[in-house]
Amino acid sequence: MVFEEKTVSTENIFKGKIIDVRLHKVIMPNGEIAEREIVGHPGGVGVVALTDDNKMILVKQFRKPLEKAIYEIPAGKLDPNEEVEICGKRELLEETGATAQRFEYLGYMYPSPGFTDEVTHIYLATGLSFGTANPDEDEFLDIEFFGIDEVKRMIDNNEICDGKTVMGFFKAMERLKGDL
Amino acid sequence: MVFEEKTVSTENIFKGKIIDVRLHKVIMPNGEIAEREIVGHPGGVGVVALTDDNKMILVKQFRKPLEKAIYEIPAGKLDPNEEVEICGKRELLEETGATAQRFEYLGYMYPSPGFTDEVTHIYLATGLSFGTANPDEDEFLDIEFFGIDEVKRMIDNNEICDGKTVMGFFKAMERLKGDL
Repeated sequence: MVFEEKTVSTENIFKGKIIDVRLHKVIMPNGEIAEREIVGHPGGVGVVALTDDNKMILVKQFRKPLEKAIYEIPAGKLDPNEEVEICGKRELLEETGATAQRFEYLGYMYPSPGFTDEVTHIYLATGLSFGTANPDEDEFLDIEFFGIDEVKRMIDNNEICDGKTVMGFFKAMERLKGDL
Repeated sequence: MVFEEKTVSTENIFKGKIIDVRLHKVIMPNGEIAEREIVGHPGGVGVVALTDDNKMILVKQFRKPLEKAIYEIPAGKLDPNEEVEICGKRELLEETGATAQRFEYLGYMYPSPGFTDEVTHIYLATGLSFGTANPDEDEFLDIEFFGIDEVKRMIDNNEICDGKTVMGFFKAMERLKGDL
């Protein structure tokens, strides 16, 4: 099957500090016109950070779209032109005060490819040492440590529901299979 | 720590067919004002569908935000007031022509809680029988079947990067542990 939707026209709806919103008129494979609502996002990096005694760092943070605080791995958005690995190390340090001896790439995900171009990269950080956290001025975080089995139980119970966190956990467990 | 960001004012930016966009002025825990860009989304359901010979159904579909076609589990958006399980069964049937004897809930995810309220529910469908697919008029899909090991390899290689698909695969493997 031909997979393409060529843009006929684009309307810029919104340009915010984080996202932008565009409306694309596209030609579908059958020649008809359809509209696509697209949210542009800079993308980001999440870090599965494991201490030497196999505790995973989770950040509890209020998420306005959900109107509640949820658990996530340390993560943040890419700054303009920032390298992915640099961003991961920066966010880990800012949010948790941790630096890692080993920083391994676990892959990337499209959180919601139906409407946004956001890409989230995921790393595994081990060999951690801790200094002082320094979150952004509009970030209010609690840092907590959980054993691997506890994180697994929280994923099973839907206490942990953040996409990058669940995917990162499973990918990290695959990577570390045999080492834990 | 107090986790709350009370809305002071809301500006409606955009109301599309799928998403809406709002700008919230909020009071942060330190009393200062910040802006939150929020994308409202109806949420959806994804289905990990396994045939009797343990092949997983993947849908290949062009995603305009990414400007390419990617593999995903069968999935779709909730219609207004639609029950989650009904939506999952409907999307599986429409996209693949399959109906399932067993339909088990695997949990839900927040694809990108930093900016959208979207929630994606995930089911495991087994005991499949196949009729005729009937995709939406603006959906152009290829349906393909992959063995479990092949899907695993494609996730490891980042050939499969869709968040709900990766999470659904791992949750399904946990659920079926010992049965495969």
